[in-house]
Amino acid sequence: MSTMPSPGRVGDVRRRNVALVLAGIQKNDGTTRAQLAAESGLTKASVSSIVTDLLEAGLVRETSVTRDGERGRPGTGLVLNPARGALAAEINVDYLAVGVLDFKGDLTFHETLERHNRGSLPSDILPLLVAMAQRAVTKAAAAGVELLGGELTVPGLVDVERNVVLAAPNLGWADVELSEELPKLLPVAPFGVSLSNEANSAALAELWFGHGADNRTSERFRDFLYISGEVGVGGGLVIDSQLFAGPQGHAGEIGHVVVHPDGPVCACGGHGCLEAFAGQNAIYSAAGIEWDSTSRQMALLLQLAHDGDERAVSAVEQAGRYLGVAVASTARFANISAVVLGGHFVVLEELITPALRRSLDRHAPGLIPEGNVAVSGLGQTAALRGAAEASVRRILNQAYELIP
Amino acid sequence: MSTMPSPGRVGDVRRRNVALVLAGIQKNDGTTRAQLAAESGLTKASVSSIVTDLLEAGLVRETSVTRDGERGRPGTGLVLNPARGALAAEINVDYLAVGVLDFKGDLTFHETLERHNRGSLPSDILPLLVAMAQRAVTKAAAAGVELLGGELTVPGLVDVERNVVLAAPNLGWADVELSEELPKLLPVAPFGVSLSNEANSAALAELWFGHGADNRTSERFRDFLYISGEVGVGGGLVIDSQLFAGPQGHAGEIGHVVVHPDGPVCACGGHGCLEAFAGQNAIYSAAGIEWDSTSRQMALLLQLAHDGDERAVSAVEQAGRYLGVAVASTARFANISAVVLGGHFVVLEELITPALRRSLDRHAPGLIPEGNVAVSGLGQTAALRGAAEASVRRILNQAYELIP
Repeated sequence: MSTMPSPGRVGDVRRRNVALVLAGIQKNDGTTRAQLAAESGLTKASVSSIVTDLLEAGLVRETSVTRDGERGRPGTGLVLNPARGALAAEINVDYLAVGVLDFKGDLTFHETLERHNRGSLPSDILPLLVAMAQRAVTKAAAAGVELLGGELTVPGLVDVERNVVLAAPNLGWADVELSEELPKLLPVAPFGVSLSNEANSAALAELWFGHGADNRTSERFRDFLYISGEVGVGGGLVIDSQLFAGPQGHAGEIGHVVVHPDGPVCACGGHGCLEAFAGQNAIYSAAGIEWDSTSRQMALLLQLAHDGDERAVSAVEQAGRYLGVAVASTARFANISAVVLGGHFVVLEELITPALRRSLDRHAPGLIPEGNVAVSGLGQTAALRGAAEASVRRILNQAYELIP
Repeated sequence: MSTMPSPGRVGDVRRRNVALVLAGIQKNDGTTRAQLAAESGLTKASVSSIVTDLLEAGLVRETSVTRDGERGRPGTGLVLNPARGALAAEINVDYLAVGVLDFKGDLTFHETLERHNRGSLPSDILPLLVAMAQRAVTKAAAAGVELLGGELTVPGLVDVERNVVLAAPNLGWADVELSEELPKLLPVAPFGVSLSNEANSAALAELWFGHGADNRTSERFRDFLYISGEVGVGGGLVIDSQLFAGPQGHAGEIGHVVVHPDGPVCACGGHGCLEAFAGQNAIYSAAGIEWDSTSRQMALLLQLAHDGDERAVSAVEQAGRYLGVAVASTARFANISAVVLGGHFVVLEELITPALRRSLDRHAPGLIPEGNVAVSGLGQTAALRGAAEASVRRILNQAYELIP
């Protein structure tokens, strides 16, 4: 009995080659069949045959291109079909959101619904999200975009294989299985709907559309820690331009790094976690801002901080200081030297980053160079874009199933 | 121009197959040519041809085996040649050591020299280590063992490619290049001498010879964090039965995780690192034990703790408590749920582990199950064995170079 994989079957080889061609087209908009052959090591004949299938399946389109410095008649370039896309849906503590991303990577539609979801049952939330998803599908169809798959992203630990939200303490969810609910978000899509962690999705968005994709910064942001500031504090670890998920897929959880051994109890049951100092509610509470069902606390905090209110300023600076403690610990541990801040850490950047910098210099001098602390420019749709693009990439990897 | 690897050349394929056969023999002492063929997917003819070469090169030996439950004449089994081996050398803060490991994984010789190396120049230490290595080579030769390569392991961050010790604050070393010194440890060995981090070597020893290799525990210890307690506190992260080294090879450094934001300055220049509470000198100092050039502090600490001396007990418990803080933070961050303690944490187990357990329950309830905190049974030679076995595995991977 052989315990080693047998040499690749013909189907596997073709499946890999289809994915290779699609990845080549995604990486280089307008690339030609000849370039794809040169870059992939495949023969021109086999690239041509695969491209013919992809055109027929509607995954790819032809476009005419003239390269800089080239003369003569334009060649035929290839692009991913912008009339195909993926859906993303997001459940967060104080909002629900859906979005449509086309194969070009453009978020062509998104909708956010402010809602306090803490303590809401999945059966309260999912119907709302399904209705939002239906509107998104309708909008996409009206714009001529067909959605082939999707991803739901949530602020908690997920089991991707079993479609289970294992723990989302800020929603009050534990061991919530969504196998029956996920398909309802996108009933007819051939690639179905997967589940992901919100901070991981935002980290991937930063890699694919943010600092990791920007020519000026991409070298420095091949390896980075993304920190998501919401009611909870989440994190995603990118190593060698890939998400480092860890043995069970839960790596990067910087929100529960202990930043003070005598700190207060956290939603996770631990004590002294970063989230208990730098999560939104922790900052509001330290600033003396009371709970407010109209979600105006952040605006109030910003106003108070801007006016120099001592409690507000010190609450935000404390969050920055403890963020520095957690970054010093985890960046050294994971051998990372760049950080991207998202969520409310972006809104509070002016006060947060100097406090973070001082804390880093105190706890890990030299570890993270000045230019390597960045704030996300992706705004509130970061997680949506990451989740949708993860779905697009999964579709491209499995596109073999769509062609004859 | 192709940017993809071209299909494997014949030499590459054969190189891979040689490594595959050797790995099969290492994994299964006494395996047969037929078993190797079945497990590797190679033809019997090609296994036979490779084995003939390996026998001729002296890397492998034949042995007669009778399997349980089999009748008839014994078959011909294959083992790695125990007359081949690797050297390990270790520089630590208060000792130097060398060892010889044969291809079977037995440490057949080792020598330790107690010496205070803090502040010693490489030019003070290397000649001593070269003399020890020569004695080891002579001893090995007398026992009929030829050493084909080796590894030097040090308590600091290393650049493996350039043979540089980047930072070993407890030795007082920064940017020390050892390219000329390493070969002197083993001048005629065909595979030379590489450089490694001491805690990583000990973590690998735990994987290959300790809890990761024990049938009763190996399932739980596929992913674990090894924590080395010396003057410094080091760490090694094993994920999916492999060392997780991180982007520059420095991951796992738990000694510089911040466990108290107001803690004392550490040898690394940071503040409040685990090492500043749980390193040997930190514990001695908290226990009121003065520096002693005869290295009797540990014996004194144990005596005092055993007698119930309040300062000694509280110093050790404090170390255990902060160890718990650092483990809670890093294990959650890296998605790890098992820990192996080495070095002085083993000696102090009786007081350390209950304090560590209480701290884990307080900071990360449920993260690390009761049976998943283990102490190393490998003793002071853990790093030596890991470094030597890493060298053996490198040799087996490159053995192609030794055969015709």
